[in-house]
Amino acid sequence: MAVCVPKGFLMAGVHCRIKRDPRKQDLTLVMSESPASGAGVYTQNLVCAAPVTLDRSRTPSDRIRAVVICSGVANACTGERGLRDAEEMARLAAKACEAEPDQALVLSTGVIGSFLPMERIAQGISAAAVKLGRSETSLIAAARGMLTTDTIHKLAGRTVTIGGREIQITGMAKGAAMMGPNMATMLALVMTDAALQPKDAQAALSRATNESFNCMSVDGHMSTNDTVLLLANGAAGGEPLSGDDLAAFQAALDEVCIDLAKAIAGDGEGATHLVTIEISGCATRETALEIAKNVANSPLVKTALHGADPNWGRIVSAAGYAGVPFDPKGVTLWLNGALLYEKGAPVEFDGKAVSRSIRDNRETLIQMQFSEGTAERRFWTADLTAEYVRLNADYHT
Amino acid sequence: MAVCVPKGFLMAGVHCRIKRDPRKQDLTLVMSESPASGAGVYTQNLVCAAPVTLDRSRTPSDRIRAVVICSGVANACTGERGLRDAEEMARLAAKACEAEPDQALVLSTGVIGSFLPMERIAQGISAAAVKLGRSETSLIAAARGMLTTDTIHKLAGRTVTIGGREIQITGMAKGAAMMGPNMATMLALVMTDAALQPKDAQAALSRATNESFNCMSVDGHMSTNDTVLLLANGAAGGEPLSGDDLAAFQAALDEVCIDLAKAIAGDGEGATHLVTIEISGCATRETALEIAKNVANSPLVKTALHGADPNWGRIVSAAGYAGVPFDPKGVTLWLNGALLYEKGAPVEFDGKAVSRSIRDNRETLIQMQFSEGTAERRFWTADLTAEYVRLNADYHT
Repeated sequence: MAVCVPKGFLMAGVHCRIKRDPRKQDLTLVMSESPASGAGVYTQNLVCAAPVTLDRSRTPSDRIRAVVICSGVANACTGERGLRDAEEMARLAAKACEAEPDQALVLSTGVIGSFLPMERIAQGISAAAVKLGRSETSLIAAARGMLTTDTIHKLAGRTVTIGGREIQITGMAKGAAMMGPNMATMLALVMTDAALQPKDAQAALSRATNESFNCMSVDGHMSTNDTVLLLANGAAGGEPLSGDDLAAFQAALDEVCIDLAKAIAGDGEGATHLVTIEISGCATRETALEIAKNVANSPLVKTALHGADPNWGRIVSAAGYAGVPFDPKGVTLWLNGALLYEKGAPVEFDGKAVSRSIRDNRETLIQMQFSEGTAERRFWTADLTAEYVRLNADYHT
Repeated sequence: MAVCVPKGFLMAGVHCRIKRDPRKQDLTLVMSESPASGAGVYTQNLVCAAPVTLDRSRTPSDRIRAVVICSGVANACTGERGLRDAEEMARLAAKACEAEPDQALVLSTGVIGSFLPMERIAQGISAAAVKLGRSETSLIAAARGMLTTDTIHKLAGRTVTIGGREIQITGMAKGAAMMGPNMATMLALVMTDAALQPKDAQAALSRATNESFNCMSVDGHMSTNDTVLLLANGAAGGEPLSGDDLAAFQAALDEVCIDLAKAIAGDGEGATHLVTIEISGCATRETALEIAKNVANSPLVKTALHGADPNWGRIVSAAGYAGVPFDPKGVTLWLNGALLYEKGAPVEFDGKAVSRSIRDNRETLIQMQFSEGTAERRFWTADLTAEYVRLNADYHT
């Protein structure tokens, strides 16, 4: 995992008093020295935030120069004024990067229903513009500027050689954690110095998102602000990627996005386990995903794993209500490699040993095999703990 | 609410050592003196228990004489032997009531993957047969025999005059609570002395279930054993109900089932609030139900209510990912009668007063109005507490 700043990108993360704690960055500015292909994948929530509306109208694009991110206020449910604020935030970021107003994208996360503190944001953008750099420190500060109650910043990267050129892909993300009284948001920004046509950037990002962020949940509550962006500025040189080169890029991009998705699930609020669910033997990849999602979002499965309980009944029954046809007599289940349930019937297993393996490892692996076909899917989630309830019940709007 | 035994029914609840605690009934026997119309509505889980398979094959019917219920073992994921055990349990119950083997129905709830302790169950059925009665004590003992970790037994009833005859409808239910290490089951049995044709009994029960048990959730995990049964033995006299009389019966049956559904939601594991969600202004009743279900099953909404937090952002955003088209600018939201959000925008409100009203009342009311039509729907759920997590994480299989 090679995490460094791709060629042609500069970034900074600063504190501009959106968050109370002065040690916490709350504004990130990312600049591409040359116009980049920009692609975006957005929340499907009908109640979507102003930055989502703005970015959706500006991607895919062949001329993105800046991304500005603030954490602490989501700018969601803020109506026309919220949209004007998002546009102004983009304009200020573009100006700081000597670009046109519509060459900037905006991300926000935090409290729903509050307006952006525009003066502070303007000051933050100015301060960040001065600090723009390409060091590891800049990268970490930028990754920290998008966090809310995440316990750790999330970075992932790959260095790959494609068509004789060294290409860097680096992504940063924030997890499904609560901000102040309100709601979770998943944000990610992936940067690469590869050359990509906008439509290819969009297709690659959509595919990578489907294999990573869309295969991950913490509490199943879809945010108003979820956004994944990809910027490809071509600073590595060469013509836009195509054919096998594009496929090689896709593979590396998938890996970066999967790393970030796993980091988000593992840092879910109150989580004590990163749970990987591998579904196989399904008729289609879509049905495999539906089954995985139902297992991942069952509070009974999540609490059992938190309690290190190899409770196969909860897992099998959660699959049973996924709304997907399957033969119950064709289901086999392993937990951390131990066989618990085979072809629709429970088998003898060492319950204490399996329980210990759950308790003693931060990662848990659920594998379910069906008998409908050959389609497979992976999904990542967190367990459900009393700490999650405490964090989300004790805050007040 | 008139809770008493309908004419022509006898019942008993006994302890037969399925549960460890000798003070807890674990077997219920219900007998109809004459053949009753029997209807059933069952879990849609593909992984369904043996009693569900058996009862499904025996309803609707015009000749049911007995229902036997055991709590402690669900007889789910038990294969062919499980099905034979369920048949034998029905046969023993039928014999005790001097009926044919196929005139009995069976309900089970409890641990998944264990076989029924058939000797104890046979002893229990014999003991219950001796105690069959029509007193209030028999009714309560019978209602208690179906419980698992419910904190209270659940009974509801209505006395209505239809076509000049007094008709009694009485239901008992158990809630979505955990049994030993395993999973929740919702069971209900409704008895009436009304005369109903089997097809009318089935239609009435399906409709009542759609308005009650299918509008209720605790944790959204659908059980392998969920079953609602209706027995109508006609002991009140007269011809089978039809026309306006049948409609009057339907209205009373709906009320009984809604009472039971609310009792289950309010007694959800660890629950401190019974939450009623009223959705209005939707294009169809199905879309209203989808929205209500998404709000009810959001852990963020449930924890906010537990924390007495009037967090409208979580509620509005949960509606937004229901997969139902609506105009976000047409959404209005009230919490315990206070207006929090109007036509897509937050409004000023007294946060402390609303928070107090949530904290100080066991019942919480969420009302959401949409602008797509005139369809309405009600839904009931419980809040999510650390106690729920503790109960479900600390048990071990």
